[in-house]
Amino acid sequence: MTRTRSLFSLVTLSALLLWGTPVLAASHHFEMTIDDVIVEVAQGLKYHTFAFNGQVPGPLIHVQEGDEVEVHVVNMTSLPHTIHWHGMDQKGTWKMDGVPSITQMAVEPGEDFTYKFIAEPSGTMWYHCHVNVNEHVALRGMWGPMIVDPKKPEKIEKKVTRDIIMMMSTWDSVYAMQPGKGGMPTEEGNMDYFGLNARAFPLTQPIRVDEGDVLRIRLIGAGGGVHNMHTHGHTFLVTHKDGHALPEPYRADTVMVGPGERYDLIVEANNPGRFIFHDHMDTHVTNAGKYPGGIVTVFEYNGIPTDDWYAWKDVSFNPDYFYTESLKKPHGMHMQPGFAGEPAEKKGRRRGGN
Amino acid sequence: MTRTRSLFSLVTLSALLLWGTPVLAASHHFEMTIDDVIVEVAQGLKYHTFAFNGQVPGPLIHVQEGDEVEVHVVNMTSLPHTIHWHGMDQKGTWKMDGVPSITQMAVEPGEDFTYKFIAEPSGTMWYHCHVNVNEHVALRGMWGPMIVDPKKPEKIEKKVTRDIIMMMSTWDSVYAMQPGKGGMPTEEGNMDYFGLNARAFPLTQPIRVDEGDVLRIRLIGAGGGVHNMHTHGHTFLVTHKDGHALPEPYRADTVMVGPGERYDLIVEANNPGRFIFHDHMDTHVTNAGKYPGGIVTVFEYNGIPTDDWYAWKDVSFNPDYFYTESLKKPHGMHMQPGFAGEPAEKKGRRRGGN
Amino acid sequence: MTRTRSLFSLVTLSALLLWGTPVLAASHHFEMTIDDVIVEVAQGLKYHTFAFNGQVPGPLIHVQEGDEVEVHVVNMTSLPHTIHWHGMDQKGTWKMDGVPSITQMAVEPGEDFTYKFIAEPSGTMWYHCHVNVNEHVALRGMWGPMIVDPKKPEKIEKKVTRDIIMMMSTWDSVYAMQPGKGGMPTEEGNMDYFGLNARAFPLTQPIRVDEGDVLRIRLIGAGGGVHNMHTHGHTFLVTHKDGHALPEPYRADTVMVGPGERYDLIVEANNPGRFIFHDHMDTHVTNAGKYPGGIVTVFEYNGIPTDDWYAWKDVSFNPDYFYTESLKKPHGMHMQPGFAGEPAEKKGRRRGGN
Repeated sequence: MTRTRSLFSLVTLSALLLWGTPVLAASHHFEMTIDDVIVEVAQGLKYHTFAFNGQVPGPLIHVQEGDEVEVHVVNMTSLPHTIHWHGMDQKGTWKMDGVPSITQMAVEPGEDFTYKFIAEPSGTMWYHCHVNVNEHVALRGMWGPMIVDPKKPEKIEKKVTRDIIMMMSTWDSVYAMQPGKGGMPTEEGNMDYFGLNARAFPLTQPIRVDEGDVLRIRLIGAGGGVHNMHTHGHTFLVTHKDGHALPEPYRADTVMVGPGERYDLIVEANNPGRFIFHDHMDTHVTNAGKYPGGIVTVFEYNGIPTDDWYAWKDVSFNPDYFYTESLKKPHGMHMQPGFAGEPAEKKGRRRGGN
Repeated sequence: MTRTRSLFSLVTLSALLLWGTPVLAASHHFEMTIDDVIVEVAQGLKYHTFAFNGQVPGPLIHVQEGDEVEVHVVNMTSLPHTIHWHGMDQKGTWKMDGVPSITQMAVEPGEDFTYKFIAEPSGTMWYHCHVNVNEHVALRGMWGPMIVDPKKPEKIEKKVTRDIIMMMSTWDSVYAMQPGKGGMPTEEGNMDYFGLNARAFPLTQPIRVDEGDVLRIRLIGAGGGVHNMHTHGHTFLVTHKDGHALPEPYRADTVMVGPGERYDLIVEANNPGRFIFHDHMDTHVTNAGKYPGGIVTVFEYNGIPTDDWYAWKDVSFNPDYFYTESLKKPHGMHMQPGFAGEPAEKKGRRRGGN
Repeated sequence: MTRTRSLFSLVTLSALLLWGTPVLAASHHFEMTIDDVIVEVAQGLKYHTFAFNGQVPGPLIHVQEGDEVEVHVVNMTSLPHTIHWHGMDQKGTWKMDGVPSITQMAVEPGEDFTYKFIAEPSGTMWYHCHVNVNEHVALRGMWGPMIVDPKKPEKIEKKVTRDIIMMMSTWDSVYAMQPGKGGMPTEEGNMDYFGLNARAFPLTQPIRVDEGDVLRIRLIGAGGGVHNMHTHGHTFLVTHKDGHALPEPYRADTVMVGPGERYDLIVEANNPGRFIFHDHMDTHVTNAGKYPGGIVTVFEYNGIPTDDWYAWKDVSFNPDYFYTESLKKPHGMHMQPGFAGEPAEKKGRRRGGN
């Protein structure tokens, strides 16, 4: 089959009668491609990724608990892939779980597949390839966020004024331009760059806030490493684990996030200033052996003057770097132009057909 | 002394009057050897292990809280060893704790030692050697599960229909056949295989369930690595940490388990299908640099047809691979023929006497 | 400016009227230097550290919640540094947070800086350099404990009879005497030694207790590694995370502590004997590839006879190794002569002036 990349989201609302109460459940149709794309993940480091809709991280999927989600995916790369919807229960739809040789055959180059399932349970979820995860997930950026809003949010969730998504991962400069290789204990990689939404400081972005804001920070362990995220100037409340409300939220200033895990933090913006927020795994704040770099951002309170020596005094601000603007949009799939890469050079591989 | 391997478990029941209520506390006597045994831990990888009663993982020890446990161990290998009963309080019996040069002298080759202690507290415990742990525990499989049933189980424990034990660890092919070496930061190993009950997928086994089953999954971090166990298709409830009931169980789909840690998960089998359950540490699902492998199993619901492309369509099923059948037996020590290895070739070492 | 090293602590008490109740808030002034110091961190391993007041770990800072803390620091080394007060909210004092190029310019060699902030919130906190953390924090020992006593302690805190601080970290023998290098994924280090309060067993110390003691163990992940601290013979209660009281303390025998994290454990000394307490990360109990070593201590109950084969039968006991004696002293900054190193040889570098 041949396809051009069509990025649209079709939403159908259907009235359901549930326990005597009319509830609206939406049906979403999303079109996705998987593309060979070069992304500049750190200053001077171009990386060959396999990108959902050409961007790393992938587009935001934002739906309501109980919505029907249909995703038609076309594999435009030269390697097999699938999509696993991490956290989705797939009740009654196990063949939509996206695991090669367990729930489906992998989607070969040029082929397509349609995933269809109900968005349950609610919370901070994500999607990623499930083929050769050591390379595709750990080193080629094949992941994106999927936020499922709950039917009955917790009290504290209703107070949130800024919603923030952070996906942490590792890059290996040795295999940056060698798609199909890397991520193995038997290979001699460097694992020398670290990404916060795929990019390394200073290519990351600050979090601009107003005093009084209530931030919800959704941490997602997307790569193969363990991250210890530490807020300066703010104690946070850990409210959700893997999307699920904790029965007893607890306070902390550092939280460990392993591969596949998610933690939701509530941060009250009550301390005007400029405070770093970073991975405390010491090597993760370096780029190719130089500090500072990697998994670093800064809470920048609006109204605080910029000092001459401030590392980000000249930053060109992207308010959607942590998906904050996208999360305000109606439910659907939202592209992030700032995360798009350049198409990789084709090497005579077959594309768009089989 | 000279001993032949005698595998029996002697149980004595004795009536005790506790708080006016007659309670039966059992006395168990177990015979154990430590043997040089070759185990096929992955396809094409034979490994020289030091095996409790000739098997890796070791035999299940399953007793009641408050029972008296006596284990007579004979070291049939050519290196010193001990047994530490991880999680046991050893109240009043600190010399039974099994730590060389702290609580006892190591048990030398050909020598024996008798451990005797009360099984307290209850929960998912385990035993392992405490000599040269970097090699013996992290790389030679010197561990087994010890389950102590509580006198007063939690409500949710009573609902369990299938009890499952999973011990996660790492193997290093470089040192596979070099007993006495490996596991050190100063040695150049590969750490390239990963075991779920000592074997790497596809040598692991599926978990066969019926809809309606309530699974209790007892995760044990037995080796030197950190594991992020992720269930597909099922959110679980984390109920116990290191054998102890959590005051507030919480829901999740991924749980991090470090060396020595245990987590008990409750999984309701309410979603017929075929769902992978694996380590999300990306390298841990590979064998010598090839995906898939390592720490992988599958929830297989009975009644789901097998597809031609299913990785385990021809699997020869062992219902006791996760100790489920053994856990149904009366309290005692239970051998697992499926975990036994082949005796290693003797190289003129003294054996069975001194 | 030129300074001699003056180690004094000036405390001013000032009466404040808070909600109608007079509360005493103290003002502390501390003098600190950062020094090039050689510390014997393991038998046969001398290490070039950058040491707060010439000791590793740094001096204890022990104050009351709400106290004013002023620290005048002079950088006597040849590299830039700062001090970050990990866990302090820095309410209204963000320029005191100690992060180079974010909250201040780094303190250059020979220069000084004065930090001034309110000690809030209470709990197990710590301080460390925030320049080149991969080397200065992960490999040069630039950290010390800061304990902020709460105005309203939890019930269980009042029962504590022995207060114990443990800072875990990693050393790399390859870079031991190469200040300015090490700690990078791109460098080929060994990461072959592991410290409990900076030293490797047997240079660590036992914890001597009486039956009936209630221990509070404050674990601090100071280096770049993940540690799994395991008590033998004692189940503990995890009461605080990062200094903050958990709403529901839970029982365990092993706790994972990542970089920057703190856990407070309550251990009831109800089991006379000799019990090891160690990192269960198997490599972390070795020194340069030899077991035992690294992160190991022993609960030694007073009155238990010493056996000939006991590893520490001849130990020269330092009751303040875990800051227990210092924590009994009045609030202030307390030096630990046992942690002091030897001044490193000067190589014509400028010192004490600029």
